[in-house]
Amino acid sequence: MTTPYTVADYLFDRLGELGVDTVFGVPGDFTLGLLDHIDDRDDLSWVGTANELGAGYAADGYARMRGVGVVCSTFGVGELSAINAVAGAYAEHVAVLQLVGSPTEPVQAAGRPTHHSLGDGDFDHTLRMTVEVTVAQAKLTATTAPGEIDRVLATMVALHQPGYLSLPADVAEAPCTPPSGALAVPAATTDATVLRQFTAAALRLLDGRSPVVLADIYVHRAGAQDELDRFVKVGGLRYASLLWGRRVVDESGPGYLGLYLGAASSPEVRDAIENTACLVTAGVYFTDLISGFFSQHLDANVRIDLQPHTAVVAGEVFTGIEMSDALAALTDVIPPADPADTDPVPTPDAVPVADAVDADSPLSQAVLWERVATALTSSDIVLADQGTSFYGMAGQHLPHGAVFIGQPLWASIGYTLPAIVGAAVAAPERRPVLLIGDGAAQLTIAELGTIIRLRIPAVIVVVNNNGYTVERAIHGPDKAYNDIAAWNWTALPAAFGGTPDTVRAHRATTANELSAAFADAAERPGMLTLIEAVTGELDVPPVLEAVAEAAARANTKS
Amino acid sequence: MTTPYTVADYLFDRLGELGVDTVFGVPGDFTLGLLDHIDDRDDLSWVGTANELGAGYAADGYARMRGVGVVCSTFGVGELSAINAVAGAYAEHVAVLQLVGSPTEPVQAAGRPTHHSLGDGDFDHTLRMTVEVTVAQAKLTATTAPGEIDRVLATMVALHQPGYLSLPADVAEAPCTPPSGALAVPAATTDATVLRQFTAAALRLLDGRSPVVLADIYVHRAGAQDELDRFVKVGGLRYASLLWGRRVVDESGPGYLGLYLGAASSPEVRDAIENTACLVTAGVYFTDLISGFFSQHLDANVRIDLQPHTAVVAGEVFTGIEMSDALAALTDVIPPADPADTDPVPTPDAVPVADAVDADSPLSQAVLWERVATALTSSDIVLADQGTSFYGMAGQHLPHGAVFIGQPLWASIGYTLPAIVGAAVAAPERRPVLLIGDGAAQLTIAELGTIIRLRIPAVIVVVNNNGYTVERAIHGPDKAYNDIAAWNWTALPAAFGGTPDTVRAHRATTANELSAAFADAAERPGMLTLIEAVTGELDVPPVLEAVAEAAARANTKS
Repeated sequence: MTTPYTVADYLFDRLGELGVDTVFGVPGDFTLGLLDHIDDRDDLSWVGTANELGAGYAADGYARMRGVGVVCSTFGVGELSAINAVAGAYAEHVAVLQLVGSPTEPVQAAGRPTHHSLGDGDFDHTLRMTVEVTVAQAKLTATTAPGEIDRVLATMVALHQPGYLSLPADVAEAPCTPPSGALAVPAATTDATVLRQFTAAALRLLDGRSPVVLADIYVHRAGAQDELDRFVKVGGLRYASLLWGRRVVDESGPGYLGLYLGAASSPEVRDAIENTACLVTAGVYFTDLISGFFSQHLDANVRIDLQPHTAVVAGEVFTGIEMSDALAALTDVIPPADPADTDPVPTPDAVPVADAVDADSPLSQAVLWERVATALTSSDIVLADQGTSFYGMAGQHLPHGAVFIGQPLWASIGYTLPAIVGAAVAAPERRPVLLIGDGAAQLTIAELGTIIRLRIPAVIVVVNNNGYTVERAIHGPDKAYNDIAAWNWTALPAAFGGTPDTVRAHRATTANELSAAFADAAERPGMLTLIEAVTGELDVPPVLEAVAEAAARANTKS
Repeated sequence: MTTPYTVADYLFDRLGELGVDTVFGVPGDFTLGLLDHIDDRDDLSWVGTANELGAGYAADGYARMRGVGVVCSTFGVGELSAINAVAGAYAEHVAVLQLVGSPTEPVQAAGRPTHHSLGDGDFDHTLRMTVEVTVAQAKLTATTAPGEIDRVLATMVALHQPGYLSLPADVAEAPCTPPSGALAVPAATTDATVLRQFTAAALRLLDGRSPVVLADIYVHRAGAQDELDRFVKVGGLRYASLLWGRRVVDESGPGYLGLYLGAASSPEVRDAIENTACLVTAGVYFTDLISGFFSQHLDANVRIDLQPHTAVVAGEVFTGIEMSDALAALTDVIPPADPADTDPVPTPDAVPVADAVDADSPLSQAVLWERVATALTSSDIVLADQGTSFYGMAGQHLPHGAVFIGQPLWASIGYTLPAIVGAAVAAPERRPVLLIGDGAAQLTIAELGTIIRLRIPAVIVVVNNNGYTVERAIHGPDKAYNDIAAWNWTALPAAFGGTPDTVRAHRATTANELSAAFADAAERPGMLTLIEAVTGELDVPPVLEAVAEAAARANTKS
C-alpha cells in the first residue's frame, strides 16, 4: 500500500513550485504532523528557530532573496508571536506565507476551552486579525484545500505580500488530489497600445536629453531589475537610489550619484535629482524615513514615473504598463551613451574619513561605517538594522554585486538578526554581514543561537553604544529609559553554543582593532565572527542626525 | 507658570488609583513623551525589557500579583510584538493594559507612509486587530480622553481582562482636567432575595453533610480567596484544586486532598471529587490541559457550582450572586468542623521518591521536582512554565503561603521567564522561583538580562532535556524538529551582564548536586541563582505522560 497523497503534500508541492526549500518555525503540538511531512521530503528542510518572531523574520529574509518564504507555527500563541514579522512583510511587500497548524476540525467544532485558544469556543479570532496584515487568508478544509491553497499562494505571489493558511491537524492528513498543472498566478500584462502612447509621451518629454534616474525598492518587487540595469547602461545615465532600494542599483557604476533622501541628501545628489530637466523615477514610494520626512521635491512636469503596473509622464497617467516593459521601451528610445563619457561621477562621500583620524583613538561612527564598507565584498548580503547601522551605511558605497537589505518602512528594530538566518539559508553562496545596534540586538538575540547551530559563516557587527541611540537622538539623550542592560557581547557566542572551532568574537574600540577583526573574519571564511564595535553613546551618523531631527519635529504638534 | 495637567497625567493618575506603580515596555519614538511623564512621577517607575513580548509577559506577571499591569510600546511594531502576551492575558483573565504610543493626530490624518505603519495611510489596522484580544479599546483624542480612559480601565478591572489605549504623541501632551472623583468600576452586586433562595437550595442539597470542595483560578479573579479559605476552615472541609488555580488553596492544610485532573488524577483524589454526596465547585472552568482533556466526571445533581456572578445548585441557576457572598452564605450554614477531626488527609504523593534512589545517580524528573518542592519556602512565588515544569510540580505540594503561577489555557511556552520580572517587581518581599525547560527558555531568554539588570534575586531552574520534551511525548520522540540549539546555560548569566557578585550558576546532574545548588541559593538570598538541571530527553513526569497521551489522541481524527 502506498502512502496516500494528502493536503499537506499538496501544499508542500505548491511551495516547491515557488522555489521554497526551507520552512522556518517553532514546533507545537498542532504542527507536529506537518513537520513529519517536511521531514519525509527530500526537497524541503525545516529550520527551527528560538522563537516564532525569529522564524517570521527569517522567512522574510529568505523571501527577500528567493521570492517566497514560509513561517510555520502553532495556533494562537505561535502565530501571534510571529505576527509582527508578517505585518512587516505586508508593509515591505515581501511574500511570506504564515502557515498555522490549528486544532482538528472536531476540536474546533466542539468549541471547548482548548489550550492556545482564548477559551471562549471561538477559534477564528486570529483568522480575523490576520486579515489586517495579509492579502489572502484561508482556514482549510479537506474539500476546499486545493483551491484555497492555490488562491492564497497565487495572490501572495502576484502582490508580493503575505498570505495566511490555517491548517487543522486532521485536514493536513486528509486525502487530496495532486495539482493537475502549474500554479496559475494572475500575471498583469502590458497593453501594447498604451505602451506606444506612453513611449510617445516620454519621447516628447525627453526631447533628445538623457534623463537622470531615481530608483527604489519596487523595481525589485516588480522584477524589473535587469531592465533597469540595461536602461542605465545603454543610456550611460546618471542615477541615484533611495535607502530602501539601494540593492536595485550598482553603487560602483560610473553613473552612480549617491543616495537621495530629500532634504537630508548631499547637496550634489539633491541638486542632480531635483533640478534635472528630465527625471525617470522607477519603483519609488516615498516613506518618511527614506525621504527626510517627506522633504522630497520633485517636479512632476519633468518626471516620468514608473510603478509596477502604471506609468506617469508629466502628470499623464498610463495604466496597464508593466514596469519592465516601460523600462525596455525607454531603453529603446533614449540617446545611447557616449562611449567617451565614462568618468565616474565624483561623490563627496568618497573622501575617506579614517585617513584623517588616529586609527588608535576611540572609534567614531564616521570611521566605523567607512571601515565596515571597506571590508565588504561583492558576494555579501548586508543586512543593516533600522537605526545607526542603516543610516551609517547611507554614507558608504556598496561593492558591485553586494545585496543590501533594510526595513525602513516597518522599521522593526531587531529584525535583521533573525532575517540573516533566512537570507543565509536562501543564498548560501553569499557571505552574510549583519550590522546592528546593541539595543536592537537585544530584541532578537536568541537567534544568535540559531546562527551558531546552523553554522552560518556570518560577520556580525554589534554597535555597542550603550542603549537606544536613535531614540536618544530624537528625545531624552540622558534619560534612563534609553539605557539598556549591559551585556557582555563577546561572551554571548560561547553561551549560545559557539566553540573556538566555530566562532570568533572580537571587541573593537579603535579603527585599527576593527580592521584587525575584519581581517580575522576574512581569513576564516567558514566561521562566524562577532565584532562588538564600541562607539560613544551620543555619536550618531550625520544622516541619522538629520532624520532624527525631522522625527522629533513630526512627534510634536508644532 | 506651573506645568499644565495633560492627558498623560490623567492616565497615570488613574493607573496609580488602580495600584500600578510600574510600567513595562520598550521605548520607541512615539512613546518618548509618555516616558518623560513616567520619569517625572514619584509614584511610577519604568522597567525597560529586552523586547515587547517580554514586556507584555512581565505586565501579565505583575497583574497576577497586583490586579492590573501595563505594557507600553510603540505603534505597529511594538504592539504587535506584545500581542501574544495580551491575548494570553485575555484567555487567562488578567487585567493588562496595552498602552500604545502612536503617531500624532496630524501625521495620522495626513495618511502618509509613516514608519511602523503598513504604508497604506490606514492607521487603524492594529486597533481593529486588538478587538479580538481585549475587552475595551480606544484611540484617544484630547476631547474624549478622560471618558475613554475611564471606560477602558473600568471595563478591564471589572472583567479582569486586557484593555487597549492608543495614545497619539500629541494627544498625550494635550491639556486635560484632572479626575473629579474615584474611577467608577461597575461592581456587580448580590441580590439579597436570590441569595436567600440559593442558600435554601444549598441547605437542602447539603442535608446536614459536609461538602467536598474543588476550587480553581476564578476564585482568585473574583477576589473570593479569603471567603474560600474561611469556608474551608470553618467547615473543616476536604478540598482539592485544579492545576490552574492551585494558588487559591492551602496545599499544606489538613483537608487538602491534592490536585484534580479528571482521569489523570490520583485515584484517591478522583474518588473524593467524583463520588462525594455533595460537591462545592468554586471558580472552576475546565480547560483541556487541566482536565486530562475534558475527562472530568462530576455529578450535577450533587453539585453546588459557584462562578464569579452566578451560582448553580443541582442544576438550578441563581443569577446575581457574587462568589464571595455565596461562599460567606455557605460558611454560615455548613456543619462546623469537628475540632477532634484535624488529622491531615493522607496523600499518596507524600511518599518521597528521592529517598528510594541513589542521590548520585543521574537526575530523574521524579527526583528533580521533589527536590525543587523541598527547597521552596512559604514566601516564594513559583512560576512554572507550561510543560514538564508545570506538570512536574503537579506531583508536589506547595508550602503554605507560596504563590503558584502557570498559564495552562493560553499555554505559551517561554511565558514565565519574563513574567517573573513582573511578579518580582510587584511583590519584592517574595522570592521568585522560575521553573522552565530549555526549549521554552529559548523563546524568551533575552529577559534573563533584565532579571540580572534589575538584580532580581530569583532562583531559576532550567530543565535541560535537550529539546521539546513535551512535543516528544506527544509526537516524534526522535525527530530533529524537536531538537533545539545546545546552549551553555551556566555561561548565559555572565554573557547577559551577571558578575560573580550578583549571579551564581550551577549545573546539576544528580540529586545531590541539585540539593547543593539550592542550598547555595538559600545561603545567598540577595543573588540570582541559575540552576541547569540535566535530565533525560524522554524522561517526563507521570502526570505529563497522561496529558500528552490525551493530547495526541485529540490531534488525530480517531
